[in-house]
Amino acid sequence: MFSRIRRLLIGDTLRTDQLTAEKFNVFWGLPILSSDAISSVAYAGEEILIVLIPILGLLSYKYMFYAALCIVFLLFLLVFSYRQTIDNYPCGGGSYIVAHDNLGTIPGLVAGASLSIDYILTVAVSVSAGTAAIYSAVPALYAHKVVISVAIIILMTLGNLRGIKDSSRLFGVPTYLFIVSVAVMIITGIIRHFVFGYNPQPLYPIQQKAIGDITLFLFLRAFASGCTALTGVEAVSNGIPNFREPSQKNAKIVLGLLAGVVLFIFGGLSYLATIYHAVPNPENTVIAQIATQVFGTSFMYYAVQVTTAFILIMAANTAYADLPLLLSLLGRDGFVPRQFAKRGKRLSFSNGIILLCIASCLLIIVFSGDTHNLMPLYAVGVFISFTLSQTGMFTKWIREKTPGWKHKAVINGMGALVTFITVIIIGITKFKHGAWIVCVLIPIFVFVMLRIKRHYIKIAEQLKLPLNIRPKNLEPSDDKQHVIILVNSLNKAFLKCLNYSKYISKNIVAFYVSVDSEEAKKLQKKWEEYDVGIPLIVRQSPYREIIDPLIDFINSEEHASKPGETVTVVIPQLVITKWWHNILHNQTSLFIKNMLYKRRNIIVISVPYIIEE
Amino acid sequence: MFSRIRRLLIGDTLRTDQLTAEKFNVFWGLPILSSDAISSVAYAGEEILIVLIPILGLLSYKYMFYAALCIVFLLFLLVFSYRQTIDNYPCGGGSYIVAHDNLGTIPGLVAGASLSIDYILTVAVSVSAGTAAIYSAVPALYAHKVVISVAIIILMTLGNLRGIKDSSRLFGVPTYLFIVSVAVMIITGIIRHFVFGYNPQPLYPIQQKAIGDITLFLFLRAFASGCTALTGVEAVSNGIPNFREPSQKNAKIVLGLLAGVVLFIFGGLSYLATIYHAVPNPENTVIAQIATQVFGTSFMYYAVQVTTAFILIMAANTAYADLPLLLSLLGRDGFVPRQFAKRGKRLSFSNGIILLCIASCLLIIVFSGDTHNLMPLYAVGVFISFTLSQTGMFTKWIREKTPGWKHKAVINGMGALVTFITVIIIGITKFKHGAWIVCVLIPIFVFVMLRIKRHYIKIAEQLKLPLNIRPKNLEPSDDKQHVIILVNSLNKAFLKCLNYSKYISKNIVAFYVSVDSEEAKKLQKKWEEYDVGIPLIVRQSPYREIIDPLIDFINSEEHASKPGETVTVVIPQLVITKWWHNILHNQTSLFIKNMLYKRRNIIVISVPYIIEE
Repeated sequence: MFSRIRRLLIGDTLRTDQLTAEKFNVFWGLPILSSDAISSVAYAGEEILIVLIPILGLLSYKYMFYAALCIVFLLFLLVFSYRQTIDNYPCGGGSYIVAHDNLGTIPGLVAGASLSIDYILTVAVSVSAGTAAIYSAVPALYAHKVVISVAIIILMTLGNLRGIKDSSRLFGVPTYLFIVSVAVMIITGIIRHFVFGYNPQPLYPIQQKAIGDITLFLFLRAFASGCTALTGVEAVSNGIPNFREPSQKNAKIVLGLLAGVVLFIFGGLSYLATIYHAVPNPENTVIAQIATQVFGTSFMYYAVQVTTAFILIMAANTAYADLPLLLSLLGRDGFVPRQFAKRGKRLSFSNGIILLCIASCLLIIVFSGDTHNLMPLYAVGVFISFTLSQTGMFTKWIREKTPGWKHKAVINGMGALVTFITVIIIGITKFKHGAWIVCVLIPIFVFVMLRIKRHYIKIAEQLKLPLNIRPKNLEPSDDKQHVIILVNSLNKAFLKCLNYSKYISKNIVAFYVSVDSEEAKKLQKKWEEYDVGIPLIVRQSPYREIIDPLIDFINSEEHASKPGETVTVVIPQLVITKWWHNILHNQTSLFIKNMLYKRRNIIVISVPYIIEE
Repeated sequence: MFSRIRRLLIGDTLRTDQLTAEKFNVFWGLPILSSDAISSVAYAGEEILIVLIPILGLLSYKYMFYAALCIVFLLFLLVFSYRQTIDNYPCGGGSYIVAHDNLGTIPGLVAGASLSIDYILTVAVSVSAGTAAIYSAVPALYAHKVVISVAIIILMTLGNLRGIKDSSRLFGVPTYLFIVSVAVMIITGIIRHFVFGYNPQPLYPIQQKAIGDITLFLFLRAFASGCTALTGVEAVSNGIPNFREPSQKNAKIVLGLLAGVVLFIFGGLSYLATIYHAVPNPENTVIAQIATQVFGTSFMYYAVQVTTAFILIMAANTAYADLPLLLSLLGRDGFVPRQFAKRGKRLSFSNGIILLCIASCLLIIVFSGDTHNLMPLYAVGVFISFTLSQTGMFTKWIREKTPGWKHKAVINGMGALVTFITVIIIGITKFKHGAWIVCVLIPIFVFVMLRIKRHYIKIAEQLKLPLNIRPKNLEPSDDKQHVIILVNSLNKAFLKCLNYSKYISKNIVAFYVSVDSEEAKKLQKKWEEYDVGIPLIVRQSPYREIIDPLIDFINSEEHASKPGETVTVVIPQLVITKWWHNILHNQTSLFIKNMLYKRRNIIVISVPYIIEE
């Protein structure tokens, strides 16, 4: 039943050798690996305005321009830095790997933890923003935004569990459509303004005068808010193995193109927001306002909204590719449960995918599906991982001193310095708005990962089998083996247990837990009649449970097993073929087994007795 | 963890010998066993008016009086009939027992099924009606009625899981308070009207003239709706063992008092509704309207509302006592899963209680917490069980011919006939409003119960051990036993398995499922180095699962086990003491065991290896 539902939802199980990654050329690599980076432009400008407008009013647009300039500068610095990472990590250079290789375990784990948090936030933020694009176009849906977001995430989860890689070129299309429709909007908007002198009324009122002065702190907060535009840049250097040969060269080209696209769209949108005075509003995104002003409610307006929604959802999808991969690396190294390193039925890292789904849905529900509430948590993690990755590259050059190392060390060193400063800025300006949550979570995650690793090491040590410990040279039929058969009535299932026990030992007793003395008497009578040949031990159980009386018996003198000795408990197990028949039987035996494992040296033998239909 | 939460909610486990039922005298037996019957009066009059008012207008009150008269006649007939049941079933004469004993299995099951449905409806209806009393007094709560009802049911479920019998006298108090406050209302209302000539305006408009004529069908529908007042009469004869000696005499006294109280309250309320022209309204119950007219918004108004709410909730509580008891009888006889016959940690029949909670909550949610929507489903079941119980008694007299049998047969025969006619009336008049659901459900329930019984019989037959089938006279260490050790790495846990396997047989192989050929090679190399001494079988598993390759191997010629032969699979099981550590390990072995049971003759041995902290 369950397996049929699973097959319907995610498809047939795939063979391991069916695992083949599609390789991209530059044309497809750009949209697929950069949808996260390009899409974040859809909300970065709005985030800057949210900080500035309430205080500076009309003046905001001027400072928005400066903040955007700083962000673009940061972008180009990152591109140059990451080109060097691509050169050196042909198998993919995520922050965890780079930091772990060059700086050690703890920095690697810090990068891993901050990236994990950010991937979860990416899904929550991108899907919320995609939903915002939908309800900006269809206001009636505003009330259902949480439901819509959760439904999108669940669909995406199912798609990723199926392993949607096969058709991933499909995911490239929305990115190009978004680029094209936004480009058309930017150009049309600028032409209408300058050539035709079009000067629309702002959709929402804006105070003309500034209430307060521009302060350094305010500007830095605006800058920090806009830095969300830079999330997703890492995806390209993560994805090098997915490029066609020459993969590193192709990756670098894509990185350059990505920077160009972000520059054009971010710059263009900021400029349009300035000339058309878009004002952040919870029910209508800035992009939607600009689109209304430029296109009215024509086809192109809806095209912009739809492609925005799509690219944002695609951006969430990159997190679905990256987080499970990161967790599989961490799981392989023993820092998270090893299950994360196992491929599921469809060869995807299904446990990571499911974790991502649950975590992001929870975030959306807790934050009521409002993008702005999640923003302060966002970006801190990305920039921490940028910093660690760049610092890792920097120390690599210093240590290895390969040809041209000085030049390269300067670039990565600058990258590290600037991203570090950005971390500080983001951390301070957004601290009380939510960034503190991330600052608390990262050390906790690192601590837990170290504990998990320690646990795995401890277990491996305990299980290690040195050559000098040899198997016992036992002859079968050692009578010192204690065998106890759990009996609940004298039937064929019990007989099967008894026959099997005789293989193991001659020292066999049957054990019966009595909750009703009438029943116990009946069994004892039958026992004598049948002349079973082994003793029947009957124990009263005032609390109607089985484990404690059994353990008491094993530890008692009557049983005469010594503390260290192995005791075998044989349990008859009725096997029923129809699933609904299981409802009709007490599954006590399953439960007993799990409880007995907790006691040392009790070996449990389950003897199935199959009921014919 | 889970057990700690459970202990917090429902308390410590109780010993079986702590099971003692409190015995009631007449004074406490009346309120505790009759809260269901007395409380149904709170909505019976309203149900009659709902049928009549839209057609007859002011004329309705006249026909309401006639309908109430018929119902009171029916009540007294039932009281006389049930006095005879009490005389003959000193251990409690529920319909299931009476019908099963005298009419056979199928009538017994029909009674059991219809009673089960009605108990579930009792909870849903009584709690909804109790909630209606609450929101009539505090209209702001109307919007939250479903949440309130579900919360009350969950609280009641927890209370019953705890076993609230200890303090059950507490539950008698609300019944007396209800009787007193309603009696005060009836007397005050009549005195104000007749002595002081008080003639209030109706709270809601009522059409003065009848739209249609009174038809027989309309009158019968009104009568059928009012018959809900008679639900709960059976509780007294169910509860005979709970009375102090002379228990049967006490039960009969309580039954008589019950009839008197119902007569007084039902008659009084119907009369007040007539003189004050109460009109059914979804947001304000008829009792609440009368209370407003008689008392204004004084203390007494709220007293009536509060006691009404309380007694209705107490009525639901009687279903919590009766349904689990009925299910335990059915479970003991094998007609429902035997788990229903088992007492839980606190000695209550916890499975029945939980079932009742889930079913009634679902009903309330599906019917949006509206009492009137549930009413047509109600009462059919009660009257079917009345009919079967009375018919059972009737055939008993005919068959046994004990002294005075003719006189007794006439009383029970009349009871059977009248309740049967009532079933027909209720069935026909309410059929399309929902009674058909009950008519469909009862045969389904009976069918399922018969299938369950057949299943239990079949299993008992297959397990039956005749004296001539003797245990095998094996010597231990038969080399024909096939033992397969599942190995995932060469460690101490495996060594423990190997050592144990040697007790059973010399015919041991190790089996390894390879999902990664690198790992497999490593293991083979270690195998040779260590010189294990048993063969290592390696199988590729393209779908990364274990069961199929293992079964294929067992069935293969290489393994050389014949189809009927027993095969033993030994599985190493890591035992970890901290619960959260379980998250860090693949529980594949647990899963494998459950899958292997489905294959004939595979005996599973779990060898625990305990990891030290």
